[in-house]
Amino acid sequence: MSDSECLGIVGVGLMGGSVGLAARRSARFSLILGYDVRGDVLRRAVSNGCIDEPCPNLEQLARRSSMVVIATPVHRIADYVLQVVQHIVPGSVITDTGSTKAELVQTVESAVPRETLFVGSHPLCGSEKHGPDAARANLFDNQLVLLTPTKKTRVLAVERVQQFWQSLGARTHLIPPDEHDRILAMTSHLPHLLASCLAGLLSRDVRPFVSSGFRDTTRLASGDPEVWSAIFTTNASNLLSVIKQFRAQLDEFQSALENRDSAGLARLLAAAKGIRDDLGN
Amino acid sequence: MSDSECLGIVGVGLMGGSVGLAARRSARFSLILGYDVRGDVLRRAVSNGCIDEPCPNLEQLARRSSMVVIATPVHRIADYVLQVVQHIVPGSVITDTGSTKAELVQTVESAVPRETLFVGSHPLCGSEKHGPDAARANLFDNQLVLLTPTKKTRVLAVERVQQFWQSLGARTHLIPPDEHDRILAMTSHLPHLLASCLAGLLSRDVRPFVSSGFRDTTRLASGDPEVWSAIFTTNASNLLSVIKQFRAQLDEFQSALENRDSAGLARLLAAAKGIRDDLGN
Repeated sequence: MSDSECLGIVGVGLMGGSVGLAARRSARFSLILGYDVRGDVLRRAVSNGCIDEPCPNLEQLARRSSMVVIATPVHRIADYVLQVVQHIVPGSVITDTGSTKAELVQTVESAVPRETLFVGSHPLCGSEKHGPDAARANLFDNQLVLLTPTKKTRVLAVERVQQFWQSLGARTHLIPPDEHDRILAMTSHLPHLLASCLAGLLSRDVRPFVSSGFRDTTRLASGDPEVWSAIFTTNASNLLSVIKQFRAQLDEFQSALENRDSAGLARLLAAAKGIRDDLGN
Repeated sequence: MSDSECLGIVGVGLMGGSVGLAARRSARFSLILGYDVRGDVLRRAVSNGCIDEPCPNLEQLARRSSMVVIATPVHRIADYVLQVVQHIVPGSVITDTGSTKAELVQTVESAVPRETLFVGSHPLCGSEKHGPDAARANLFDNQLVLLTPTKKTRVLAVERVQQFWQSLGARTHLIPPDEHDRILAMTSHLPHLLASCLAGLLSRDVRPFVSSGFRDTTRLASGDPEVWSAIFTTNASNLLSVIKQFRAQLDEFQSALENRDSAGLARLLAAAKGIRDDLGN
């Protein structure tokens, strides 16, 4: 039987740990359970107050929770959802925090029963840091969480997952999984890939000459390689498509540069500045 | 005749204005003069305390200053140096804050008399903001300023320019102009170009989904287009060379992505993370 309002978190790193801290702050759950394959991470999540109680196995967490959040690297989420489904109490809801959605949602919907209350979620916040030590109760405050229901998703589940994220301080927005992945390829996955490409180029001898501009531009490259490798491969075709767009834009800059076309470069830079200034800090 | 210790600043935007504020803090100069072709900028530099007194023309500033700093966009620096040289008192020193050095230093050295005390400088700090309103007295604190003397440069001038930047709170390092431009193409000009390429790609419909990662990666794109167009064109061949290196790195990521090679992507990401983590925040 599930505790009256028990939250179960699978994967208690930065994101799962922050879900726990924010849920504790909201005082909506009487108990917060956590599960993680990494024993030390699970222990730190308890000592940091991210969760009340560690679960030794997934079955126990699934049986007791009315809301389960899977916050593991994206390529592991579907498998965890399918395991949780086997043990969960009818009426309980499952969501996740994965950065790609189309492949995940398709896998889950083709494998689980019609009555399963799963809704994909993606909080558009995070950090290049990781682990429960970097978790913050205010991580979701006023941040956007995208929910990716499909025609098969139960309306009740969507409502409960929306309320859940809102209780953690977030705003929510509904978007189809394919559309989500297409947009995020540009707004998140391409920037990460470019940051990593650039950081990877920096030879040791020039590092003393790096200043804040290089640091800002490459900050994302400190992200977890396993997490981001999974994001890239689960959104490969969209990411390849925006890389192609990026190369075309780079071609324009390069051509102006080859022609020593100051005015052309200034026009390209001014157009980019206009867009960037609009985004604010 | 020059005032006993008078500093003259040509171009009183973010960089020139900060030189003024930092020099005032150091109390080493009895008077700080400023010149700018933009009347409103000159007035704001006075009201912000960046300079003591605006000069109506360059000749007056040159005659009165024992140290002149040219802090204009880089393509205008050589011309200002040559104008200042015509009026400056013997023994006075000229430096600048330009982001590219080889073309500038060559132009100045081929045009001005042997006894002219000019040394190229480049403070490795700044901001995507601009104008005297963004100037800060602590902009140079513990930041690196690269000096680019050549065989023709008088040792006395190098010493005085080193002492000048150190009195403003900076550390100094000597480097040949060509070497400076080669390094900065990688550490500063390529990041800026990539940030602008990426920002320029963002279509209006996806802007609501941008989060901190995109903002960090594109922060440099808010820089002044005229300033950066000049930097790019005066360092075009080095910049084209690092763009080529970047494309090769991008090819590697793309190839791993096309092959859905998670392990290969994770290796590339881990190598980049190692380099980025070493740079710190």
